[in-house]
Amino acid sequence: MGHDPVRFGIIGCAGIARKLCRAIALAPNATLHALASRSIEKARSFAAANGLSGAVKLYGSYGDVLDDPLVDAVYLPLPTSLRAAWAVSAARKGKHVLLEKPTAVDAAELDRILEACEASGVQFMDGTMWLHHPRTEKMMEIVSDPGRFGELNSINSMSMFTPSGEFFENNIRVKPDLDSLGALGDLGWYCISAFLWAACYKLPSAVSALPDVTRNSAGVILSCSAVLYWGSAHETAATFHCSFLAHVSMDFAIIGSNGSLHLKDFTIPIEEGSASFEFTPGAKFADLHIGWNVKPERVLVPTELPQEALMVREFASLVQGIRNSGCSPERKWPEISRKTQLVLDAVKKSIDGGCILVHL
Amino acid sequence: MGHDPVRFGIIGCAGIARKLCRAIALAPNATLHALASRSIEKARSFAAANGLSGAVKLYGSYGDVLDDPLVDAVYLPLPTSLRAAWAVSAARKGKHVLLEKPTAVDAAELDRILEACEASGVQFMDGTMWLHHPRTEKMMEIVSDPGRFGELNSINSMSMFTPSGEFFENNIRVKPDLDSLGALGDLGWYCISAFLWAACYKLPSAVSALPDVTRNSAGVILSCSAVLYWGSAHETAATFHCSFLAHVSMDFAIIGSNGSLHLKDFTIPIEEGSASFEFTPGAKFADLHIGWNVKPERVLVPTELPQEALMVREFASLVQGIRNSGCSPERKWPEISRKTQLVLDAVKKSIDGGCILVHL
Repeated sequence: MGHDPVRFGIIGCAGIARKLCRAIALAPNATLHALASRSIEKARSFAAANGLSGAVKLYGSYGDVLDDPLVDAVYLPLPTSLRAAWAVSAARKGKHVLLEKPTAVDAAELDRILEACEASGVQFMDGTMWLHHPRTEKMMEIVSDPGRFGELNSINSMSMFTPSGEFFENNIRVKPDLDSLGALGDLGWYCISAFLWAACYKLPSAVSALPDVTRNSAGVILSCSAVLYWGSAHETAATFHCSFLAHVSMDFAIIGSNGSLHLKDFTIPIEEGSASFEFTPGAKFADLHIGWNVKPERVLVPTELPQEALMVREFASLVQGIRNSGCSPERKWPEISRKTQLVLDAVKKSIDGGCILVHL
Repeated sequence: MGHDPVRFGIIGCAGIARKLCRAIALAPNATLHALASRSIEKARSFAAANGLSGAVKLYGSYGDVLDDPLVDAVYLPLPTSLRAAWAVSAARKGKHVLLEKPTAVDAAELDRILEACEASGVQFMDGTMWLHHPRTEKMMEIVSDPGRFGELNSINSMSMFTPSGEFFENNIRVKPDLDSLGALGDLGWYCISAFLWAACYKLPSAVSALPDVTRNSAGVILSCSAVLYWGSAHETAATFHCSFLAHVSMDFAIIGSNGSLHLKDFTIPIEEGSASFEFTPGAKFADLHIGWNVKPERVLVPTELPQEALMVREFASLVQGIRNSGCSPERKWPEISRKTQLVLDAVKKSIDGGCILVHL
C-alpha cells in the first residue's frame, strides 16, 4: 500500500482533461480511477474517444466521484465559476485537489477552497504546468545567481494564441457566467505566474492594466495588457500582453544587471522531449560598438516526462506522503496559487477601474 | 566628378565618431575630408588614435569645417543640445547633414533643422543605423505580407546596456545641459524607431510613460518605460523599456495574427558579417496542446558592409544624386526622423506629467 499509486477522479470532460488523462497515465505514481461528466453518455463518449481502460469508473454526476471511497484526489477542469463549489466539496470529502487555473473567479473564492483543504488536511495544487518542467529549475539556477544574473531589472511576457472560430461562440473561456476572466484568466495567469516566479514570489507593490483591453459582445476579455511594479518607487516593471486574437506566442524575457534569459515557449514547450532557453551572460559591446563580445547560449534541458506528467507526479508524491507517511500538505503550492490569484484580481480591478494603479 | 566620393567633415570627436570614421572609410562612395574638435590638439589626438590618413584636414573649430568648400556633407555627433545650432549652420552653408540621434532636444528644434535643410536643398538623415541593415529589409518583407504575418497585434522592445562607472559622472549622455533626454534619447529612440517601422510609420494615437522612471541626481533619465497605442480604442500596444542600468539587451518582438518575429540584437547585431532573426510562421498547438506544429525559423541575413557603412553609403548616394544629377533630397529620411522625434517628445511629456496619456 505504501507505494500504491494515487487514484485520481476527473470531474468534467473539458478538452484539457484529455491532456491530464495522458499525464496521469504517464506519471509512475498515479492512476486514473474515475471520470465524471454531467451525463453518463458524455463520460462514456469521452472514455471511448480517449481510449480509457475499462477499469476506469464512469459517472454521470460530479458528486459520484466525491462519494467514491477509492478516489484519493480529484482533478477539476470545470469552468472557473464552478471551481470553488466543487473544490470545496472535494476537500470536505477528504479528496486532494488538483485545480485548473485560474483557480477561482477571485482570491476570496480561492481562500474558501484553501481553507477547506487546510481543514481537511488535503493537498492543493493548481494546474500551472510550466513550473514543473526541469527547464524552469535550470533557469532559476541562473536567475538566483548574483554573478551570472544579478539584480532583476526588467521582465516582459506574452501569452497568446488564436483559437478556432467556434471558440468565440461556444468555448467556456469566453462566456461571462463560466469564465468571466477570459484571456486574463486563461493566459494572463501564466504571465503573472512567470513574473512572480522571477521575483521569487515577492508580491508586486502595485499593478496597472493598460488601455488596450478588448472584449467580446458579452464583455469577456479577449486581450489585455498590464504592468506589475516592484520597489517603493515602482522602479522595476514587468509588462505582459495576453490575447485570444494573435499568433501563438509564449515569450518570456528576464533581464538582470549581469545577464538575460529569453524563451519563446515558456508555457507549452515546442517539443515534448526537451525544451530550451537562451542565456546571454555578461554581454558587452565590442570596441567601436560594432558587435557583442558573447553570443546568447542555447541551453537545452531534456525531460524524462512531459511537464504535465511531472506536475501529476509531484502532486501524487505529496499525496502519497500525506496518505502513507503522515506528512503535512506542502504549503508552497497553495501559496503560489494565492499570490497569482491576488495579482490577477488586482489586474482585473485595474481594468474595471479604467487602468487605475492598484496597490497590493 | 560624377562618381567622385562624397567628402565628409566630422564635427566633434565623440566616441561614436570613431565608428563613423571607419564607416566612411568602408563606404565605397564616401571619403573623410575633414575633422574638427573644439581644439586642434583634440583633433590631432583623435586622428592619431584612430589612424586617420594625413590627408584628412584637422580643424580646431567646428565652424572651419563648414567654411571648407571641399566638404560636401557633415556628420554631427555633438551632444544633443548642440545639434540644432550646428546642423542649421551646416545646412545654410550648403552642407548635407547626417545627424546623430536623438536628432534634437524636441521636435520644434528638429523642425528648424529640417527647414534649413529644405531651404538649402541638402539631404538630411539621422544616424539610426539598424534601419540600413539588410536584415531590416528582410523582416519587412515578412511583416508586410498579410499571409505570413497578418495584422500587427503586439510589439515589445528593450534597449539597454550598462556603461562603465565613469559614464555616470562624465558622459554627455547623462548631463542635463548636454543630453537632457538621457536614456530615452539615446536608447528609447531605437525602440520608438522600431515601433514606427513596424507600423509602417503610422503615428500612434497616444503614448504613455510608465511610472518606473529612474533619474540621476541631475534629473537626467537613466531608465524608463513607455507604451505606444494605435487604433481608436488604443487596441494595439507597443511597450518598451530603455535603460543605462541593465545587461545589454536589444530585444524586438513583433507579433501578428499569423506569425511572429523575434530578435535580440536589433540595434547592434551580435556579429558584423551577418545578422539573424527568428520567424515563427503559422504556429498552432499540437493535439492535446503538448507541443507546437512548427519551430521558429532562424533567418540569417549576410551583409556585405556593416550597417553603419550601409547608412553612409545610402546617404552619400543621395548626396551624389543631388550634387551630380540634380535630384531632390529624399524626403523619406527626414520624415522618419521627425515622426520618431515627435513620439519621443510625447513620451517625455508623459514622463514630465506623471505618466499622463499624451495624444498625438
